[in-house]
Amino acid sequence: MNKPALKLAIIGGGSSYTPELVEGIINRIERLPVREIHFVDVESGREKMAIIEALTRRMIARAGVEIDIKASFDRRAAITGADFVLTQFRVGGLQARANDERIPLKYGVIGQETTGPGGFAKALRTIPVILDICRDIEELAPDAWLLNFTNPAGLVTEAVNKFTKVKAIGLCNVPVSMRMMIAEMMECTPEELSLECAGLNHLLWAHRAWIDGKDVTDEVLQKVGDGATYTMKNISEEPWDPEFLKALGAIPCPYHRYFYQTDAMLAEEKAAAESQGTRAEQVMETEQSLFELYKDESLATKPTELESRGGAYYSDASLNLIDSIYNDLKSLHVVNVANNGAIPNLPDDAVIECSAVVGGWGARPLAVGTLPVAISGLVAQVKAYEQLTVEAAVHGDYDKGLMALACNPLVPDISKAKLIFDDILKINHDYLPQFGRS
Amino acid sequence: MNKPALKLAIIGGGSSYTPELVEGIINRIERLPVREIHFVDVESGREKMAIIEALTRRMIARAGVEIDIKASFDRRAAITGADFVLTQFRVGGLQARANDERIPLKYGVIGQETTGPGGFAKALRTIPVILDICRDIEELAPDAWLLNFTNPAGLVTEAVNKFTKVKAIGLCNVPVSMRMMIAEMMECTPEELSLECAGLNHLLWAHRAWIDGKDVTDEVLQKVGDGATYTMKNISEEPWDPEFLKALGAIPCPYHRYFYQTDAMLAEEKAAAESQGTRAEQVMETEQSLFELYKDESLATKPTELESRGGAYYSDASLNLIDSIYNDLKSLHVVNVANNGAIPNLPDDAVIECSAVVGGWGARPLAVGTLPVAISGLVAQVKAYEQLTVEAAVHGDYDKGLMALACNPLVPDISKAKLIFDDILKINHDYLPQFGRS
Amino acid sequence: MNKPALKLAIIGGGSSYTPELVEGIINRIERLPVREIHFVDVESGREKMAIIEALTRRMIARAGVEIDIKASFDRRAAITGADFVLTQFRVGGLQARANDERIPLKYGVIGQETTGPGGFAKALRTIPVILDICRDIEELAPDAWLLNFTNPAGLVTEAVNKFTKVKAIGLCNVPVSMRMMIAEMMECTPEELSLECAGLNHLLWAHRAWIDGKDVTDEVLQKVGDGATYTMKNISEEPWDPEFLKALGAIPCPYHRYFYQTDAMLAEEKAAAESQGTRAEQVMETEQSLFELYKDESLATKPTELESRGGAYYSDASLNLIDSIYNDLKSLHVVNVANNGAIPNLPDDAVIECSAVVGGWGARPLAVGTLPVAISGLVAQVKAYEQLTVEAAVHGDYDKGLMALACNPLVPDISKAKLIFDDILKINHDYLPQFGRS
Amino acid sequence: MNKPALKLAIIGGGSSYTPELVEGIINRIERLPVREIHFVDVESGREKMAIIEALTRRMIARAGVEIDIKASFDRRAAITGADFVLTQFRVGGLQARANDERIPLKYGVIGQETTGPGGFAKALRTIPVILDICRDIEELAPDAWLLNFTNPAGLVTEAVNKFTKVKAIGLCNVPVSMRMMIAEMMECTPEELSLECAGLNHLLWAHRAWIDGKDVTDEVLQKVGDGATYTMKNISEEPWDPEFLKALGAIPCPYHRYFYQTDAMLAEEKAAAESQGTRAEQVMETEQSLFELYKDESLATKPTELESRGGAYYSDASLNLIDSIYNDLKSLHVVNVANNGAIPNLPDDAVIECSAVVGGWGARPLAVGTLPVAISGLVAQVKAYEQLTVEAAVHGDYDKGLMALACNPLVPDISKAKLIFDDILKINHDYLPQFGRS
Repeated sequence: MNKPALKLAIIGGGSSYTPELVEGIINRIERLPVREIHFVDVESGREKMAIIEALTRRMIARAGVEIDIKASFDRRAAITGADFVLTQFRVGGLQARANDERIPLKYGVIGQETTGPGGFAKALRTIPVILDICRDIEELAPDAWLLNFTNPAGLVTEAVNKFTKVKAIGLCNVPVSMRMMIAEMMECTPEELSLECAGLNHLLWAHRAWIDGKDVTDEVLQKVGDGATYTMKNISEEPWDPEFLKALGAIPCPYHRYFYQTDAMLAEEKAAAESQGTRAEQVMETEQSLFELYKDESLATKPTELESRGGAYYSDASLNLIDSIYNDLKSLHVVNVANNGAIPNLPDDAVIECSAVVGGWGARPLAVGTLPVAISGLVAQVKAYEQLTVEAAVHGDYDKGLMALACNPLVPDISKAKLIFDDILKINHDYLPQFGRS
Repeated sequence: MNKPALKLAIIGGGSSYTPELVEGIINRIERLPVREIHFVDVESGREKMAIIEALTRRMIARAGVEIDIKASFDRRAAITGADFVLTQFRVGGLQARANDERIPLKYGVIGQETTGPGGFAKALRTIPVILDICRDIEELAPDAWLLNFTNPAGLVTEAVNKFTKVKAIGLCNVPVSMRMMIAEMMECTPEELSLECAGLNHLLWAHRAWIDGKDVTDEVLQKVGDGATYTMKNISEEPWDPEFLKALGAIPCPYHRYFYQTDAMLAEEKAAAESQGTRAEQVMETEQSLFELYKDESLATKPTELESRGGAYYSDASLNLIDSIYNDLKSLHVVNVANNGAIPNLPDDAVIECSAVVGGWGARPLAVGTLPVAISGLVAQVKAYEQLTVEAAVHGDYDKGLMALACNPLVPDISKAKLIFDDILKINHDYLPQFGRS
Repeated sequence: MNKPALKLAIIGGGSSYTPELVEGIINRIERLPVREIHFVDVESGREKMAIIEALTRRMIARAGVEIDIKASFDRRAAITGADFVLTQFRVGGLQARANDERIPLKYGVIGQETTGPGGFAKALRTIPVILDICRDIEELAPDAWLLNFTNPAGLVTEAVNKFTKVKAIGLCNVPVSMRMMIAEMMECTPEELSLECAGLNHLLWAHRAWIDGKDVTDEVLQKVGDGATYTMKNISEEPWDPEFLKALGAIPCPYHRYFYQTDAMLAEEKAAAESQGTRAEQVMETEQSLFELYKDESLATKPTELESRGGAYYSDASLNLIDSIYNDLKSLHVVNVANNGAIPNLPDDAVIECSAVVGGWGARPLAVGTLPVAISGLVAQVKAYEQLTVEAAVHGDYDKGLMALACNPLVPDISKAKLIFDDILKINHDYLPQFGRS
Repeated sequence: MNKPALKLAIIGGGSSYTPELVEGIINRIERLPVREIHFVDVESGREKMAIIEALTRRMIARAGVEIDIKASFDRRAAITGADFVLTQFRVGGLQARANDERIPLKYGVIGQETTGPGGFAKALRTIPVILDICRDIEELAPDAWLLNFTNPAGLVTEAVNKFTKVKAIGLCNVPVSMRMMIAEMMECTPEELSLECAGLNHLLWAHRAWIDGKDVTDEVLQKVGDGATYTMKNISEEPWDPEFLKALGAIPCPYHRYFYQTDAMLAEEKAAAESQGTRAEQVMETEQSLFELYKDESLATKPTELESRGGAYYSDASLNLIDSIYNDLKSLHVVNVANNGAIPNLPDDAVIECSAVVGGWGARPLAVGTLPVAISGLVAQVKAYEQLTVEAAVHGDYDKGLMALACNPLVPDISKAKLIFDDILKINHDYLPQFGRS
């Protein structure tokens, strides 16, 4: 069948990650005949987007491929006729993230930008914007796929699924990072490793791991317990207790440290905030030096320094997903999609992160059956937090927002929930018109 | 129909509560023709049981009713032919309770005897003993009803339901206390008030309150938020935040303070432990003075001082339940029984605390439908803790025990879970043969 | 508490049952202080309503109670300010019922007015009318209770629950008839008998029966199998196979004969239709003679001849229900209400027929837990039929209607489903404007 | 990775299908390095197995591949060390099948060997035998995969999953036949077609069909309604009503005709039984002539006449499955496996037929979410029949067997259920020792 060439719209095109994405497109041009990439960003990102535009044009030219690069502030033009819309924007920029990290810490609570109160604040800012984007997609590119990277990716994708008709898949680099790290410790290729994953975004377990049809879950747990490298750039590598891992019986994701090793993670965050600054504050510096590099007119490839930014494999994960959809590959990916029974006890319309078969039909999750009780309890609790957060973000509902934080396992009690929520509302005032509090 | 007169077996007969129970029996003798009460206790309670035996004989004599009082250490004799077996024993006595309260506090964690790690330790000690009692009931009184007051009452009843054939109902004084306090603040009689209750033991919500067919839930929440008396003797009366109550939309039980107001409750516990001692340590003193009173040979009624002991309405709650069963009243009680769909998303065999119709058929819970997500998430999480605790207690399974504590919302992370669990195993060594660790 | 006196609105006031209802009110006047009864009917029932009005006025006068009887064609006036609205109307009258019975028989399919294609046709005619009534109640008596007797009572109540805000309970005389017949065969009073009932309207099982706390289910099944009287006026008393009853392990309702003894029931219906006429045709005669009696100005009580009309206990069932609500009795009734988890595997908003606690809060079903698989399969199948029928009736959706009949276990296949459906649409053309087919 | 070569055990090796299977193995020898095939059969099949053994040896020799062919009556030897055990046996042979078809017809009920009472009888005979086989596999080849073709494949696989530890997948040629026929009518290759399948064995729907990411379900339904070829060799091609298909909204499988077009199928069965004989009687003749062909010593390939036997694609379906497992392909197949939430409202351990990802980990079903109510009702009803049949077959429980037939939608009522069941027990007496009735 003769398939048409592709148009991609990149919302948040001025991101420092963009060169990696473009590199990935160039490398796959035989499988993914992209004819146009339209970057779009907000006015305050004008300078960064210009740098990205120039760099990626140089990359395209050097590679000798024919892709039309556009960069504008006209989101509707970018979306019109797009086949895939990629969202990697950050409402409020890194300064808002720094606030997300600092506010909870002030009250002795984990300050992390995706999980806990930080992710809650980010969701409140992000969801109204992505719903706006979806209204445009419904009108201007109703057959397009939305691939959402914007964190908290599960929550945000759930809002899209519940409140729009857009075909959306949420994507995270945690699952592919888990695969890479486990393959390395097991000394096999990533392709030889099978993982049965199910949970929520940043709360993902590989329930079982196989190599070549042999269940190696216990072996992996032992290696992780023995100190095999098992974390991501942006998460402190707190060691795992081998006895706990054995009792758990499933492979946690690096972000689980926030839930299972809360005290140690909190101590590390506090120490970092006092010395080198929170993660956002560190990233600001990295970003600045990256963009300095990007400006260099002799640069026509993705610089290796980008890897220290974190977010490894994002480009691969998203482009492999597009490949699976466009070429109807029916291959397995771990994505954020509507549950539809994959995890019993969660509603059909709850977005989960799970192994799914991706093809022209989108993503169909694998049914994993009833989860172990120690896992399903935590999943239910965190999903309650997520459902309430979506309601709060969409309707500007203070009560729902308060209950969301009260349900979050990282928030110790309601008095702290309220203090933190009120600070979040105040400091993010300009980004939260839905709450209409002055 | 001519019903036979009743034999009651009271396991833990030497409890200071027993006089209240006997008083209740005397008051209901027309409806509940009790012919025999057999107290049974362990050797170390010999003195207390003798005091109770003498006091209750005097009470019977004074009332002029014909009840045969027996007291022995022969549990099998007590159970043989009993119609109702009441369990109110405490494995390890108040000293064990003091340990349950002190160990978690050592690590900055809520130290409460029913909820959190304290209740976990109590469950580990209690469940093997109650299963033993049930083996006797299965053999010697297979038609008897077991009414279990021993805390944590929900957990313990779940173990009985899952691992024995005994007809069991778990009972707590929290629901009746809630009714009394709400009736008082609403200025109606307890009978005029209807409460639709569902949750877990010590994690119970009245989802709606009616007076005379009118929904008064919001009014009750407002009064509680405004500072109406709403606690029990053994729980610090931390005030409730009115905004939180409005957002919650259901009436929490006094024990919810441990979950919703964790920091304040912890602070209060710490302060108390340092000054007047933990609750157990205070109760030891009360107990001593109560038994001094009980010894007084001129005393032939329940002394009013008993009320300061806490545990109000226990006697009424249990005897009204017996009345409902014996006289097939089909009246509503809030009890701990198998879920059977009353709370969707929990298994049929999970024991819940809920409004139920009690009669000769036992207790049939009312179906309340899908709970609000902010409540069902917490229920799922705590029920996961309970299911794992039951497994750990029955099978002496260390992994299950560790995961149980890791699932308990009052335990902040796994490193503390492990420290606490190891202390519990060590200090309770003699009471936990199932763990077989030396 | 001083409760206001009651106004009742009776939709379909010209029914031959009405005198029984009024008699019941007179008998309960101490408990239910009714001050006004407003009968309302359609123009074509003018004569009958006039006869009923006159007779009931005579009854009131004779009893010396003060009740204001009104009769009109002004439904809105009747509903305004009513406390209870009782619906016992029949769209299309007995002629429509005769059609409902004749059409399926033409194709060799059970022709019964509540179950199978006959009930389907009746639902299509009835649901639009009752939704109209509910719009009036929402506006004119928003606190009123709707008690619906109109068959198929479960289906119709489900439509009300899903598409209106009216507080509704569906009522049937089958459960009380079962209680009466079982009590008689067990030689106890109806009050001594406890039945745990759950299923759908006219598809109700008593899963267990107790007398005085003793499970007598097997004994009841044996007596029914041995030929104890166990049917209702309008259902042929086909004997039950004792081996089948033992295998079933639950007490079926008389209407189950249509599902379990289809061939014999069909044969009986065919024979009756050819000789004395279908049930509707027989009832027409009874009705005529009843109204002749009612006209007699010397008559001032319910004539005993009414009992041969069928529908025994309707009056008692409905007035006891009103008593429970008005006086907040919290007594057990078997009613049609939203499932809310009482039968797992059915949605919360599916209306079921089940034992429920009735008081000022309405009806709260008992949770019965997972049903035996032989029962839950049939329940799922019939509920699918009901859900589709409600959709078809409300939206005039031909596809849903066709699938509804295809799902009905009494309809052997889709070719017959279609023939019957098309006949129903044609013959009921004037009553089914929602289908808009000419 | 260097994988060991494979041993296959074929239970029922004397089947006329075997040459097709061996041909498939020869064609895939590069991907599936089979080193040994061990046929095993019962004594009464000695002659057929000898013919098959000789023919397949000639096939192997002609193809020049090295496979060790063994044929014996020693099931334990065959199973020892096998990597895959394929079960294609028929307890009681074609004569038993003829009985299965004739008995229901005698009572005017569909007589089909997999669906309805015929399949019930076959399950009762088959399940005890396959459980015996599984005991051998547990002991002698615990890592082997059991691929079960023996009908009713869903039921039989459910028994294996519930009562043994064997890793089993049930397989049917209906799904692959559906794919072939739909691809042909849509003029695409089978690979270009995506089907989302879920249901039960011989009660399978393709809920949606895609070509190249485009949903073509409605188009397929229209073509089937317009008379596109859509049946299998052994099922009468009764035309589908286009209006019904539109209302159904999903693509039924050819066997659905028995449920949706019962009257026409019954009429066709009766006519066939009176003229050319039941399907079993026709197959007996085909079989005889096939074996005559097989005897021809010059024959060294699968004869084309085998195709008229029915059972197309069996060989491909099973060998592609083995390929997916052995080479860890993670490709999509439609198989019979434990539900695990794929179809909500069915238990986790119910075996369903569904799209699943097959690899070294076995088969993981796709989660399809809540099915349309018209479909889920029928699925629940038929699964109830299947669960009861498994219980009846394993425990020889008459009550469960009677209720199973009473639940089967093809059996009109309990009187016929009983007549048929009693006939089945009598005529299959020698094959049903578990019922122990003499």
